[in-house]
Amino acid sequence: MAENQAATTYGNGKGAGATVGIALLGMGTVGAEVFRLIHENAADFAQRIGGPVEVRGVAVSDTSKPRPGVPAELLTTDAHALVQREDVDVVVEVIGGIDYPRELVLAALNAGKSVVTANKALVAAHADELAAAADAAGVDLFFEAAVAAAIPVVGMLRRSLAGDKIKRISGIVNGTTNFILDAMESTGASYEDALAEATRLGYAEADPTADVEGHDAASKAAILASLGFYTRVTFDDVHCEGISSITAADIAAANQAGYSIKLLAICERLEGEDGREYVNARVHPTLVPKEHPLASVNQSYNAIFVEAEAAGSLMFYGNGAGGNPTASAVLGDVVGAARNKVHGGRAPEDNTYAALPLADFGQVSTRYHIDMDVADRTGVLAAISNVFADAGVSLRTVRQEDRGDVARLIVVTHSAREKDLEDIVARLETLADVHAVNSVIRLDNA
Amino acid sequence: MAENQAATTYGNGKGAGATVGIALLGMGTVGAEVFRLIHENAADFAQRIGGPVEVRGVAVSDTSKPRPGVPAELLTTDAHALVQREDVDVVVEVIGGIDYPRELVLAALNAGKSVVTANKALVAAHADELAAAADAAGVDLFFEAAVAAAIPVVGMLRRSLAGDKIKRISGIVNGTTNFILDAMESTGASYEDALAEATRLGYAEADPTADVEGHDAASKAAILASLGFYTRVTFDDVHCEGISSITAADIAAANQAGYSIKLLAICERLEGEDGREYVNARVHPTLVPKEHPLASVNQSYNAIFVEAEAAGSLMFYGNGAGGNPTASAVLGDVVGAARNKVHGGRAPEDNTYAALPLADFGQVSTRYHIDMDVADRTGVLAAISNVFADAGVSLRTVRQEDRGDVARLIVVTHSAREKDLEDIVARLETLADVHAVNSVIRLDNA
Repeated sequence: MAENQAATTYGNGKGAGATVGIALLGMGTVGAEVFRLIHENAADFAQRIGGPVEVRGVAVSDTSKPRPGVPAELLTTDAHALVQREDVDVVVEVIGGIDYPRELVLAALNAGKSVVTANKALVAAHADELAAAADAAGVDLFFEAAVAAAIPVVGMLRRSLAGDKIKRISGIVNGTTNFILDAMESTGASYEDALAEATRLGYAEADPTADVEGHDAASKAAILASLGFYTRVTFDDVHCEGISSITAADIAAANQAGYSIKLLAICERLEGEDGREYVNARVHPTLVPKEHPLASVNQSYNAIFVEAEAAGSLMFYGNGAGGNPTASAVLGDVVGAARNKVHGGRAPEDNTYAALPLADFGQVSTRYHIDMDVADRTGVLAAISNVFADAGVSLRTVRQEDRGDVARLIVVTHSAREKDLEDIVARLETLADVHAVNSVIRLDNA
Repeated sequence: MAENQAATTYGNGKGAGATVGIALLGMGTVGAEVFRLIHENAADFAQRIGGPVEVRGVAVSDTSKPRPGVPAELLTTDAHALVQREDVDVVVEVIGGIDYPRELVLAALNAGKSVVTANKALVAAHADELAAAADAAGVDLFFEAAVAAAIPVVGMLRRSLAGDKIKRISGIVNGTTNFILDAMESTGASYEDALAEATRLGYAEADPTADVEGHDAASKAAILASLGFYTRVTFDDVHCEGISSITAADIAAANQAGYSIKLLAICERLEGEDGREYVNARVHPTLVPKEHPLASVNQSYNAIFVEAEAAGSLMFYGNGAGGNPTASAVLGDVVGAARNKVHGGRAPEDNTYAALPLADFGQVSTRYHIDMDVADRTGVLAAISNVFADAGVSLRTVRQEDRGDVARLIVVTHSAREKDLEDIVARLETLADVHAVNSVIRLDNA
């Protein structure tokens, strides 16, 4: 009976003035910033929380490495022991990776600690398991920093828009790829040159795969879709295409037609052939009309465009990566979790009550921008048009440029099922008069 | 002893599955949307809250007016009795005005009800009193809809950025004036014609004073400054200038120099002459460089630009007014307040611990764009330059256009104290060779 009550309400806090103990897991760029800011702003945090915070320990892999400003006695390699210490209330995980932080976060939640993590890969892979552990313990599990760093899109979806119905989320959520695409557009550089420049300037990692192939964005798409549609979407559910095949010619053609190419994470509700509502999350290069607010998001900035039934269109813009912006988001969560430890209560949990079915990517409605080299003679356009007509897909614009005996043909379709468009492209490639399908890029439906 | 405990933690909720009773005060555009959406999304809300919501009554001034979809038995003219009903947990105030809603909100808070209000004038005038009542009762007082409707800037300042230090907030927070200024810029229309068009299209009210004179924006500036700086700033503390004196010539001159004129609400920290930190909130027409994200906020859209120490620059963009966006913000707050009623706990309250002193407007640092008609003869520029030099203010650009025997002189200053610039303008007006000071408009320091 007493247990039942504990499960239905979130219980009392430690009381105003009580100290909140923090365990910090990881001391990379973000961890060091978090540690520094907790100490620099200690007086402010105490006022905002209702009691002081104190870092009880910092788990690192190597305690001998010099860490300026961090007292040596706080360092430990035994993260498991740290997260279960009795004087720890909130665990901050900024290690990265999946398996090891998963163990630690679960151990922390099971020990009744609230957890703040910046780890998108962990959340996108194991949200169900983590949320269940947080629910069982009645503690907070926060991850604002996991999507677009300091842009508070997680809090907005979980709280501010909780009274609305999200229809669609489309966002530039990876700074590396946006930097590369923006550089290609503004300088005419090739993908390879723009990537090299991004690496030189520190916008791309030595192994850029996770960014340029869209995996990082896919983790964020999974998190955004889960929050926006109250439905669990994991990394594996996200259709993912990166930017490594985008050429300078693609960018130039897009520009000429009034578009910028952006790597978008798109989460949307759609109606299936059975009339039921489905959700889909995907990441792919996308043609965005230049007058759309997302088209003017330059350099490594991030932006999330949200369409909701009552609120209409909202856009959130800012630094989507970096030690300081990520630390800002982590610390906002730390203040929130610490407040609840002091005063009692718990923030809205991860709620997947809607459990909408996930659409196959083939069922997604999209538009295509198809760039082909075709034979420059009578009847070619008719043959190509027939391929589209047979599949019931209508054309929106057709643009032809002569290039001697070869013509370049750029076709933009109206909206159709992804599957039908894939079939069309496959059929186009079999036509003798189609010398090459140079590129196929989707247009944003927004 | 028991009372003391109740004051330091927020107590338990009603328990999962319990019904949350809502009292709705007001049935205008927003009230009607709130009512409709609560019923249309009842199943979703119950899942998100943890228990069903039920509207217990709707307070209106005239119960005989037909209100489609609202059962007659819910209507009452006795708002005081309604907010104190035992089966009411959350009171939603969307009446408008100040004195009458103030009485009702206080009565509701004193009776232990959480309150959601969209009333910026009420919050900007009486936040201290309302916050104290909410604290005493341990209930939530939410007002996301009071600033920029569905743009969740209140939640962002109160929660997401709670771990950061806000340096400056500058926002387009009034849709009517942005519509007028945008129309003047894009069509070359006069202020009077653009206002008439805004009125015709429903963007301006029959009496547009509160919008065009900046009073509406000033209420929002007071709320933003209070949240951002943890310091109480009220409507009366906000220096406020409207747009009614902006001419087509001002817009044209701004355009030529690469600026758009926007009515900005600006909240910032500044260092006083005594070396202490002060805060200031103000509303005035402002020259914004065209490349700044705020310059491209068109029509009646709102946007808030936030600069924080760790997060860097963030921008939030969307519909800042209208029944649906406002209802979205109100309902987000209703879900939050209802959750806390069910599960226990309380959201971060209005915290003004920092209590920074407010700067006199004269102490604010600003830059001026001054447009004058001057005599076109030798020595005039020297005389004018001396006025600035005597006050220790340096010039950034000087542009002169001949117009027969009169010249138009446009001067842009470097940053200086508002008070010094006011003195300079007063002195310029006394110079015989200055025929007229046509306009004085501030530049955004951002």
